[in-house]
Amino acid sequence: MALALHSYWRAGAPYRVRIGLHLKGLPYDYVPVNLLAGDQHGAAYKGLNPQGLTPALVVDDGLVLTQSLAILEWLEETHPEPPLLPRSAADRAVVRAMAGIVACDIHPLNNQRVLKALAGLGVDEAGRNAWAARWIAAGFEALEPMIARHGAGFAFGESPTLADCCLVPQVYSAGRFGVDLSAYPAIRAAAERAAAHPAFAAAHPERQPDAA
Amino acid sequence: MALALHSYWRAGAPYRVRIGLHLKGLPYDYVPVNLLAGDQHGAAYKGLNPQGLTPALVVDDGLVLTQSLAILEWLEETHPEPPLLPRSAADRAVVRAMAGIVACDIHPLNNQRVLKALAGLGVDEAGRNAWAARWIAAGFEALEPMIARHGAGFAFGESPTLADCCLVPQVYSAGRFGVDLSAYPAIRAAAERAAAHPAFAAAHPERQPDAA
Repeated sequence: MALALHSYWRAGAPYRVRIGLHLKGLPYDYVPVNLLAGDQHGAAYKGLNPQGLTPALVVDDGLVLTQSLAILEWLEETHPEPPLLPRSAADRAVVRAMAGIVACDIHPLNNQRVLKALAGLGVDEAGRNAWAARWIAAGFEALEPMIARHGAGFAFGESPTLADCCLVPQVYSAGRFGVDLSAYPAIRAAAERAAAHPAFAAAHPERQPDAA
Repeated sequence: MALALHSYWRAGAPYRVRIGLHLKGLPYDYVPVNLLAGDQHGAAYKGLNPQGLTPALVVDDGLVLTQSLAILEWLEETHPEPPLLPRSAADRAVVRAMAGIVACDIHPLNNQRVLKALAGLGVDEAGRNAWAARWIAAGFEALEPMIARHGAGFAFGESPTLADCCLVPQVYSAGRFGVDLSAYPAIRAAAERAAAHPAFAAAHPERQPDAA
């Protein structure tokens, strides 16, 4: 199976998928989409993903998958080992809820297009950073007790799950916004543990070919 | 199995779960959480869901599930019939991508807490409505060709899926923000078809016990 991931090094959603691909041990071609240069709005990329957002994963030069959570679930269904979801439905719901907190309640409010729109409303850089930090804090306050309860090294249990695929890029982003993580020891511990894992290391933004 | 859904009649995320519960034919107790009165920040609700967001689904007075997509996936895993996801992994990825466009790229930008935060930044009501309409339009532009291609009555194929569980509440919300849907005939057709389905009708905000 040939996989091509359309990605921008520093964006959160493709970072999640890179982690998933490395955890599954799947090699892929890396196709950079320069979000700062506006590549995502160009005809070439919009032909692939009319939404103009990264990532897109192209399978065997035909099937185009979009939306990072949908891609991660597809990876799990087509390549079940190693599993990125626990076995019981109740545990799977917890992992997916952790992923959802990041993917639905934190990240959408802080990505590049939203910060640009805020600037268009006259919100200055300090205001935009405060905006980002506010939603990161709200989400992390919800995640912290969940990880403290369910984590055992990783965010849920002793091995990486979809939750870590989402958490680690969000912690990276929090660093960019200068969010103080000292109130979130369980999140920090999980992110540090993940950083030491080779799949997470390989997926790190600064290890990507388009890193500036 | 006893189910209690903590919901607010007009909020999008619990509306998704109500649709899923009705599609699966699962009776549940309805527990209102008045978001306008701030119930979601009270100790009682935060004891259930520290994130202070709706919905929460309590199973057998013990297991507490949060995050609407995670709850819908749990419903699908624990009650497979009728299926809310197609059979092939590729098709499932399309349905989940449709759901993700709504749940990750539209709704998080338009919900009550975000509109309130914008007001706090000095954005007036017209500006807030324009903000909401902007993200709805961006998401619907992506969904329209997907539904035109894959839909056959419902958003994907001939029966309801997770995509419809997310789409219908978003179309309802678009109406509240005065978004013109004439540019999205496939979305409109899918939403109208769903409105005629008894599960969607039963889940409609105005049919809920706390509807004002």
